[in-house]
Amino acid sequence: MTVIEKMGAKAKKASKMLSIAGEKKNDALKAIAKALTDNAEKIIEANKIDLENGRQNNLSESLLDRLMLDDSRIKGIAQGVLEVAALPDPVGTVISGGKRPNGLEITKVRVPIGVIGIIFESRPNVTADAAVLCLKSGNAVILRGGKEAINSNKCITGIMQDAIESAGLDRNCVQLIEDTSRQSSVELMCLTDYLDVLIPRGGKGLIRAVVENAKVPVIETGAGNCHVYVDESADIDMAANIIYNAKTSRPSVCNAIETVLVHKNIAEKALPVIKARLDEKNVQIRGCDETRKILGDSVIPADESDWETEYGDYILAVKTVKDIDEATEHIAKYSTGHSECIITKDYKNAKKFTSVVDSAAVYVNASTRFTDGGMFGLGAEIGISTQKLHTRGPMGLNELTSVKFIIEGDGQVR
Amino acid sequence: MTVIEKMGAKAKKASKMLSIAGEKKNDALKAIAKALTDNAEKIIEANKIDLENGRQNNLSESLLDRLMLDDSRIKGIAQGVLEVAALPDPVGTVISGGKRPNGLEITKVRVPIGVIGIIFESRPNVTADAAVLCLKSGNAVILRGGKEAINSNKCITGIMQDAIESAGLDRNCVQLIEDTSRQSSVELMCLTDYLDVLIPRGGKGLIRAVVENAKVPVIETGAGNCHVYVDESADIDMAANIIYNAKTSRPSVCNAIETVLVHKNIAEKALPVIKARLDEKNVQIRGCDETRKILGDSVIPADESDWETEYGDYILAVKTVKDIDEATEHIAKYSTGHSECIITKDYKNAKKFTSVVDSAAVYVNASTRFTDGGMFGLGAEIGISTQKLHTRGPMGLNELTSVKFIIEGDGQVR
Repeated sequence: MTVIEKMGAKAKKASKMLSIAGEKKNDALKAIAKALTDNAEKIIEANKIDLENGRQNNLSESLLDRLMLDDSRIKGIAQGVLEVAALPDPVGTVISGGKRPNGLEITKVRVPIGVIGIIFESRPNVTADAAVLCLKSGNAVILRGGKEAINSNKCITGIMQDAIESAGLDRNCVQLIEDTSRQSSVELMCLTDYLDVLIPRGGKGLIRAVVENAKVPVIETGAGNCHVYVDESADIDMAANIIYNAKTSRPSVCNAIETVLVHKNIAEKALPVIKARLDEKNVQIRGCDETRKILGDSVIPADESDWETEYGDYILAVKTVKDIDEATEHIAKYSTGHSECIITKDYKNAKKFTSVVDSAAVYVNASTRFTDGGMFGLGAEIGISTQKLHTRGPMGLNELTSVKFIIEGDGQVR
Repeated sequence: MTVIEKMGAKAKKASKMLSIAGEKKNDALKAIAKALTDNAEKIIEANKIDLENGRQNNLSESLLDRLMLDDSRIKGIAQGVLEVAALPDPVGTVISGGKRPNGLEITKVRVPIGVIGIIFESRPNVTADAAVLCLKSGNAVILRGGKEAINSNKCITGIMQDAIESAGLDRNCVQLIEDTSRQSSVELMCLTDYLDVLIPRGGKGLIRAVVENAKVPVIETGAGNCHVYVDESADIDMAANIIYNAKTSRPSVCNAIETVLVHKNIAEKALPVIKARLDEKNVQIRGCDETRKILGDSVIPADESDWETEYGDYILAVKTVKDIDEATEHIAKYSTGHSECIITKDYKNAKKFTSVVDSAAVYVNASTRFTDGGMFGLGAEIGISTQKLHTRGPMGLNELTSVKFIIEGDGQVR
């Protein structure tokens, strides 16, 4: 058995106890929150080594910032753990059921999935966030973080394991793969005997690598080439405001927009208003010919690749369309199925857009930035699924569960 | 583009119309039912060619019987189509929703998955059964049946396509791959650009081949190494009756049992009663040492492989256990996660068994043969999922759908 196979076997064993652990899971979560706060100094020291290594390896300032942990960030993580503890336990929830004509009582209940793998990149807060969501939903977890944060991750995991043990649960409910070579990540992707599902959290490159190489089931998250379509009847100020928010409030996240489609009959009036708002944040516009005719040569000509690109930056592609059908066809062709929005006053077009557009979240007159577990009222989120099987959209605790049918009888045969 | 890629593109196109087809889907189903009945003679003629080829290729009588279509079987298929037409349409069902504090109205609704592939073996009735379940749930389907039934399948598919077209829908909602070489099946498993999910229906070999080779998402169905555990407190007659039913009413199906575990304290009384019932059908028993001590040397000694085997035949493995924990541990080790049952009068043991055993269907005092879409009240079934993601247990129309969040606002930004 390799090191990772051994971890898999331990996780499987821990998951069996955890699936029936009930209230002890919350004891463990509260113990984790307290231990993280109590050991803040230790975590910060470990984190300093990562930061120092990062500087020596010339990590960018923004990456160093994502890596950095201080007192206030650790308090934030601990607070998040307590919020998960306060959520209702999904395990055991009755989804449906009833008595069949033959007297059999059938109940469909939520059960944990089993063992979940999480592969993530530099941010060490994911270590705690992901672990506690898995723990609360009754799943054992194997974490595989990036090498940049390995010292922070080891420290945080050790603290969590001690806390879990202090609550009377198996410390192997949460494990961290300490080997950050490519080999360890490939091995995790192929751990079919022990891993029930693998969730990648991070950039496009990571997610593609996992989806293409994994032999275990994967939940694909996060790719967001999101669109706003400005309908002929749109309120132009609302359109400009939503586009400004969806593009600039946090351009690096997956629910930010990348392309705006504008009905040709409103383009001449709307585009200058939209551009004026985007100029406040120096957003670079890449436009089709029609857009450039209206907005002038300062707009960079867009080519095919612009419709496909998730910029994650202060860049926006803009295209005029002849009608709503051209808009929905463009979206069908280029969207990653994350979030799309129509700005309209027209009832029929609103209904058409929400019915025809095949994405996880389809908006009328609101910013795509709301696609988020917290904003949707799920309480916490482990990622946003852009696939159609198992779960689609923001994934909360329920989405980390499976189901089981319990059938109670008194001797029925068929 | 290969032939199969072209079929994929056509299916994708058809699925877009189908996803918003509403009542036209039922018109198509009714047209299919009528056309199958009206064209029964034509189907029987095509089927005769398959039967003749089968005989020349020395297919067994039981395989020839599964392949055979006559008037009454075709009427049965048409009746099944009408029953699916009468079921509620899952598409558009609101699963949950509500108004958020910021005024956003969020609704989670069912939508079709898109394009479904079905790989199946000899029975030509699957052609119609699977196609109409996909059609009703708004999905386009690509069928890939076995070579034994190719003439029947071509005939049935052609009739269905004409009927679909007569109802005003795209005939490519249902397509059949006419090439029955291994190559065509491998190509379908890798059709990632067009296929949203692939469902294998058939024997263990087929299912393993699909799970191991597919690059598209797969829903694993059907492997059933099912168990009955006879607890110390069991009603012995009930135990014998349930075991008799679960083993012999249809030994070839996935919800039939393969192993019986008996508490050692009841074994001496229970085993002879159970054996007497099984003798009625000449069931071969393969027992552990303890079982052989009680039942005598006519019982064949069981080895490790017997605990792992899905016989699908009049053969049953029997093992005594020292307590319920040994029973649930045996099940955890050898079960395929399909259906397991405890026979008991003890409340605590009933609760323990249903809580600890991690299978799609867990029974107290009833035959595992009830694990079935019809018996569970789903109305129709495309298979029984033994995986934990997306869906577990009998799969009806709901399980052939995904979800979408629709968010309606009046200008909200974040």
